[in-house]
Amino acid sequence: MSKPTGDIGLIGLAVMGQNLILNINDNGFTVVAYNRTTSKVDDFLANEAKGTKVQGAHTIEELVAKLKRPRKIILLVKAGTAVDSFIQQLAPHLEKGDIIIDGGNSHYPDSIRRTKELEEKGLLFVGSGVSGGEEGARHGPSLMPGGSSAAWPAIQPIFQAASAKAFGEPCCDWVGETGSGHYVKMVHNGIEYGDMQLIAEAYEILRRGLDLPNDEIADIFFKWNKGVLDSFLIDITANILKFKDDDGESMIEKILDSAGQKGTGKWTAIASLDAGIPVTLIGEAVFARCLSSLKQERVRASKVISGPQKEAFHGDKKQFIDDLEQALYASKIISYTQGFMLMRQTAKDLSWNLNYAGIARMWRGGCIIKSVFLNDIAAAYTKNRDLESLLFDEFFIDAIHKAQPGWRRIIAQAVLWGIPTPAFSTALAFLDGYRSEIVSANILQAQRDYFGAHTFRVLPGKENAKLQAGKDIHINWTGRGGNVSASTYDA
Amino acid sequence: MSKPTGDIGLIGLAVMGQNLILNINDNGFTVVAYNRTTSKVDDFLANEAKGTKVQGAHTIEELVAKLKRPRKIILLVKAGTAVDSFIQQLAPHLEKGDIIIDGGNSHYPDSIRRTKELEEKGLLFVGSGVSGGEEGARHGPSLMPGGSSAAWPAIQPIFQAASAKAFGEPCCDWVGETGSGHYVKMVHNGIEYGDMQLIAEAYEILRRGLDLPNDEIADIFFKWNKGVLDSFLIDITANILKFKDDDGESMIEKILDSAGQKGTGKWTAIASLDAGIPVTLIGEAVFARCLSSLKQERVRASKVISGPQKEAFHGDKKQFIDDLEQALYASKIISYTQGFMLMRQTAKDLSWNLNYAGIARMWRGGCIIKSVFLNDIAAAYTKNRDLESLLFDEFFIDAIHKAQPGWRRIIAQAVLWGIPTPAFSTALAFLDGYRSEIVSANILQAQRDYFGAHTFRVLPGKENAKLQAGKDIHINWTGRGGNVSASTYDA
Repeated sequence: MSKPTGDIGLIGLAVMGQNLILNINDNGFTVVAYNRTTSKVDDFLANEAKGTKVQGAHTIEELVAKLKRPRKIILLVKAGTAVDSFIQQLAPHLEKGDIIIDGGNSHYPDSIRRTKELEEKGLLFVGSGVSGGEEGARHGPSLMPGGSSAAWPAIQPIFQAASAKAFGEPCCDWVGETGSGHYVKMVHNGIEYGDMQLIAEAYEILRRGLDLPNDEIADIFFKWNKGVLDSFLIDITANILKFKDDDGESMIEKILDSAGQKGTGKWTAIASLDAGIPVTLIGEAVFARCLSSLKQERVRASKVISGPQKEAFHGDKKQFIDDLEQALYASKIISYTQGFMLMRQTAKDLSWNLNYAGIARMWRGGCIIKSVFLNDIAAAYTKNRDLESLLFDEFFIDAIHKAQPGWRRIIAQAVLWGIPTPAFSTALAFLDGYRSEIVSANILQAQRDYFGAHTFRVLPGKENAKLQAGKDIHINWTGRGGNVSASTYDA
Repeated sequence: MSKPTGDIGLIGLAVMGQNLILNINDNGFTVVAYNRTTSKVDDFLANEAKGTKVQGAHTIEELVAKLKRPRKIILLVKAGTAVDSFIQQLAPHLEKGDIIIDGGNSHYPDSIRRTKELEEKGLLFVGSGVSGGEEGARHGPSLMPGGSSAAWPAIQPIFQAASAKAFGEPCCDWVGETGSGHYVKMVHNGIEYGDMQLIAEAYEILRRGLDLPNDEIADIFFKWNKGVLDSFLIDITANILKFKDDDGESMIEKILDSAGQKGTGKWTAIASLDAGIPVTLIGEAVFARCLSSLKQERVRASKVISGPQKEAFHGDKKQFIDDLEQALYASKIISYTQGFMLMRQTAKDLSWNLNYAGIARMWRGGCIIKSVFLNDIAAAYTKNRDLESLLFDEFFIDAIHKAQPGWRRIIAQAVLWGIPTPAFSTALAFLDGYRSEIVSANILQAQRDYFGAHTFRVLPGKENAKLQAGKDIHINWTGRGGNVSASTYDA
């Protein structure tokens, strides 16, 4: 057999896979394509891949034989058992140092397991988040690879060439250990939920609060897109708001207000609860979709529950719109702060060394949340890779200080108007808790000790003979002795 | 062997088990006690149970032999493998129609599984929530049994006799099928998290907003405890606020503001995400505890992030305190509304017939969330057992209408003061979303269709030839054709 010339193999010739192959080919690498239904390989070579350097393989053995060592094989198949099945088929044909890359939407615990299993066999595994959809795969996705660190030097040239570019840099860098690539992709999706919800709330305030027509709101979004909010999602929202149906009415007014969810937002919220990190904004964004989907129930409720009398807005409209921009911006800072806190805690729990600046850079292009803002996050983590949270970086402290007055005015006004702003509000509540040396959890601790003898710790500076630092303290609150429980109270 | 005289058996002689045995014995039933370490049985009979009708057993066989049929055996052992282990030991000795009751803190999926496994053997299984701690077990717990419905007539006299009583009725009723007893106990605990957080927020507003001393705040809570908020938790909070350390300083000022969590609040939040029901208040309550536990990080953040300048309160103090009572009450209504919506959705998903009025009655006494308020919930579900949510009951609609103005003023003021009220705020956001025929999720749907061709549905009343009811619609938003994705935008 002749010397192999394939730089990388790819299994799974759905549109995503085909597009990624063509993208890698465009960047000068030789890709070997394989698919379980092998007629798809022939079709692909005869059509989309005609005239390229792409090679086909009709068996796993042929695929492996056509690849230079260390072999690099990307799986772009349905998350779940299909991934395990191809790994099992591939592994016996591979040699020490060969690399299997899962580019599907796998849940990170699976990627943790697969890294371990393959490393035990002397093979390398990479779980890579791939963002940007079919179009991104073709012209430059955001790639978030993590797993066996030894694999990175081998795949780096191909991955960074194929990825999107932003600010002159590839939207791909090494994330970290085991399942971290898919973990970071999950958090990306959660943050996407949050960003979208924030925009929806700003829209609702402009539409229902200021009674602005959609064209005017679109112009506001276009303007915002030239400032701190400059991002893909703000841009497309402006375009959406300009879009008219054939009868001239805004298309947005004709769309059912009931939002679906694919599950990754929910995964992020659950991961936050498990990690004990208050990622409240993504949580509220997921729940807002849940509430939106109770459409019939809302319609019925709207007929029996009334809100405040709506009054026309008589304030300074320009100031209000500037305030709203700041509310959106500050809430977004909180959301990313929470998302990075979650990644930091998980890295601690799972002994990952995450590349936070790299993660921000990966997200600057090729994906839904791409924005200028991510550049500032990358800068913060480049300055200090052990940054406790974004709220300890001077740039963001300044931004939050500047935004606060307007942000507070917007929420207070929305609350009085009766316009729901769950994401704006939870972001501000988080900030006000986070910047509080003392919060009211002393009440919770006293209650828990009162009804269940759960004990508490003493506040530093308040120690005495009975209240000793580092000790679990129980107080006989009622003077009735022993542990007092709920049943001593008579409702 | 003589004819068995035991009415019920109990395995697990920790304090909870011992107390429940003495409680059941007080009510005229003969209990047979067993423990893996059998010396505990002898100790118990010779001491705590001396002079009672309680019988001991030194083997599983002896325990079973001493029980009248159908045999009823309560397990009060550590949740997890210990429960399965005792079930395996017991099952071979039991006969058709005998009943095993798990009274531990099991997670409901385990109870679903155990019901199925035992019913396949012709046995009956009950998973029962037991609330009220050690003291409740002794003098009257709240009992929430669910599982094999055929078991209920046999255990009802014992369970309802041993349970707490409130408003002249037992705090125990049949919950529903399979794992519903432990499910309802889980939701109870989640609601407890919410109730506690609401009280903590009200306290913080009085303490930091109005600068009131703890004694005065205690008096406010005592007064509230005579009105719509009358409940165990309000009562103990007032007592806590009155409690002085030996030096005369309020004990509450000396308690570390960092709250632990045992996991059931988190379980409820995760169950909500899985069910797709926006149980936002419990979610925020869990996250508030997470934030409180980041004590060191908060202390450091408090030194670099500032909030609004605090100004003395110049408004009508009495009105403000009345507003706050309404804010707490309305938020509590929302929390219970969400909790019951969650149970209703899960009942739908798992084909349970839940006894909602009974659940409210069970919670009126013997447990941490007991309150007069639960009586109103029981009344609402008694009037209409298929009630869509509490916000469709006239009593609660009136209460919410009455509370709204004050509730909104409180949140607006807290937001301007910089005092975090995540639970008050999320409750109001939920109400404002729930009572909205149209929410802003049309923006989310348009965005999802724009960047990922996820499609949307048409709003009823806006149908036309292109936008047809019931169809998944995709729009070519950019006029560039095909599916447009994120990568066409250049950040």
